[in-house]
Amino acid sequence: MDRRSFLKNSALGGSAAAATALAAPAYAQGNRSLTLVTTWGRGLAGVHDSAQYCADMITAMSDGQLNVDLKAAGELVGAFEVFDAVAAGQADMYHGVDYYFLGQHPAFSFFSQIPFGMTFMEYANWIDHDGGHALADELYAIFGLKAFSAGNTGPQSGGWFAKEMNGPEDFQGLRFRMPGQGGQVLGKLGASVQNLPGAEVYQALASGAIDGTEWIGPWADETAGFQEITKFYYTAGFHEPGPNLNLVLNLDVYESLTPAQQSIVENASRASSIWTMSLFMARNAAALSRLQAGGVQVLEFADPIWDAFSTAADEVVAEAMGDPIYAKCHESYFASMRSSAQWSSISEGAYLAQRNRLKG
Amino acid sequence: MDRRSFLKNSALGGSAAAATALAAPAYAQGNRSLTLVTTWGRGLAGVHDSAQYCADMITAMSDGQLNVDLKAAGELVGAFEVFDAVAAGQADMYHGVDYYFLGQHPAFSFFSQIPFGMTFMEYANWIDHDGGHALADELYAIFGLKAFSAGNTGPQSGGWFAKEMNGPEDFQGLRFRMPGQGGQVLGKLGASVQNLPGAEVYQALASGAIDGTEWIGPWADETAGFQEITKFYYTAGFHEPGPNLNLVLNLDVYESLTPAQQSIVENASRASSIWTMSLFMARNAAALSRLQAGGVQVLEFADPIWDAFSTAADEVVAEAMGDPIYAKCHESYFASMRSSAQWSSISEGAYLAQRNRLKG
Repeated sequence: MDRRSFLKNSALGGSAAAATALAAPAYAQGNRSLTLVTTWGRGLAGVHDSAQYCADMITAMSDGQLNVDLKAAGELVGAFEVFDAVAAGQADMYHGVDYYFLGQHPAFSFFSQIPFGMTFMEYANWIDHDGGHALADELYAIFGLKAFSAGNTGPQSGGWFAKEMNGPEDFQGLRFRMPGQGGQVLGKLGASVQNLPGAEVYQALASGAIDGTEWIGPWADETAGFQEITKFYYTAGFHEPGPNLNLVLNLDVYESLTPAQQSIVENASRASSIWTMSLFMARNAAALSRLQAGGVQVLEFADPIWDAFSTAADEVVAEAMGDPIYAKCHESYFASMRSSAQWSSISEGAYLAQRNRLKG
Repeated sequence: MDRRSFLKNSALGGSAAAATALAAPAYAQGNRSLTLVTTWGRGLAGVHDSAQYCADMITAMSDGQLNVDLKAAGELVGAFEVFDAVAAGQADMYHGVDYYFLGQHPAFSFFSQIPFGMTFMEYANWIDHDGGHALADELYAIFGLKAFSAGNTGPQSGGWFAKEMNGPEDFQGLRFRMPGQGGQVLGKLGASVQNLPGAEVYQALASGAIDGTEWIGPWADETAGFQEITKFYYTAGFHEPGPNLNLVLNLDVYESLTPAQQSIVENASRASSIWTMSLFMARNAAALSRLQAGGVQVLEFADPIWDAFSTAADEVVAEAMGDPIYAKCHESYFASMRSSAQWSSISEGAYLAQRNRLKG
């Protein structure tokens, strides 16, 4: 789909011209105000912090020449409306995770998360040095957007359940919150999958509208309060081993920036990616201990469940391969992952095995 | 040692006042030129690139207000002279790895690499979110310096040897290049350890002045050409599982920057850390394949050698614990590492085990 036909077909298409006029940059004493919308409710642990880091660093590094005003989900537009809002020029940029927008294009999976896909480091390798960024530029330009990798939660937990999951058959009929292609995989196992933004998950779980949910990991999940409702917590999951968060700008806005300002946006995003990833790493271990102390049972899925995840994930990916951009991204992504995974295994993997053996 | 007594005792102490006068910032049309010296020869793969990235991004983001002029090792001062040069104000900042400066303080090990220590992600976690940065500020301020994490090579290879290493006794009498506390560990095994900057290693190996060397990993080592001389290459090593490269500023220079410029320096460094780490990851797998195709034998140390590394590393660390700053850093560093390693093991570790099992 080219950009023009996207705008024509988009829900916002009719008002795109008006929205663009609305978004004419506000210059005041040489300074420019930029609106950043997000897929995160204000205060959602880690992910809102990541967006705020980007906003603060762009403002600070540009000495206020670019004054970024963060509007969290619901403050200007809803969590799932940020893509259309920025494409149409109603806001200048968004911070979010792009598997929320698979309806716009299935290949956004590669720039957020593919089931059984890349970890944080594997993704950083691909996007910066192994072909990923050029593919992202090609895809996002279709929608008049420009994306920068700007955060990662690290491996997400399998999620919260009302009871132990003893086999793949336990997913049959389960009403579960999981976005992206991961959610499609659970659908193959018979789950009734819902895609809710983070700020709405607690209420859905508390009201019984869903039986269980995944969100992020121990720290963010504890902050959200899921342990007040369910007690069975699965740590490792197949669905999001290293979900990439993007800072996505309206392409016209990006191109209107000076080279110095463009470099500031790019490097604020890159700095946020490692700052955010390490923030989650720093907080998760202690949070998991607190959850366990509070009576949460910490579990791992048994191999037959992983086997079922794997088979269903292959089906979901195969179904999406009909799209030529998806297929092109798939080839580049998995070739890069095989290469980086092989090196990681004989370097960091071998080292950690020895460190664990010798130092406990 | 306080800063004044350091300057008095330093090799550069006598000329410190003259050097400071030399380094008075050059303002031209509102712009300021900053000299960046490095511990890397110009063109050394990955590490020189990392320093250049910092220089280019500071210049670009500040729109030339800060114009960073990179002088590689030997162009203004030698690789091992950068610390004194920046402390004395002869240069404004350096990019390097601080185990070269254990003679100034043993605790620099923690901000470069401890044997059997942290990986890249564990270090990023500690330095940004778990107490590391405050300890670095305290240590570097003694010398009138301010350090930012600005790169990482990922796990370094065990190194290049003239023959297979069959047991710890094979290190007896070996003339080997390895810096930092890692080198001290090999010394405990009877090796004659030399600390040479990267640009001098090839010549030392080619001339027979040393029997073997470690440098970085397949890509950087191939670029340096060690495969032309030796054919036995050990991949995983105990000595540098994730060495941190720093951008280190003269503290007076740092404090003379505007808040916007300070933020630019901090975020250029943080962006460089992930950009550099992923650059090494992207290049190592293909380089290792080329080395193997060229007749290099790729090997792993057997467990008895790892056992000897482990025992000797404990001795080296215990001997340094008499220094109170070293001991304070040790407590913070290893508490953080235990916590982050535990979480990584049950999240990314468990995921990768399943991905390997199911997807090969």
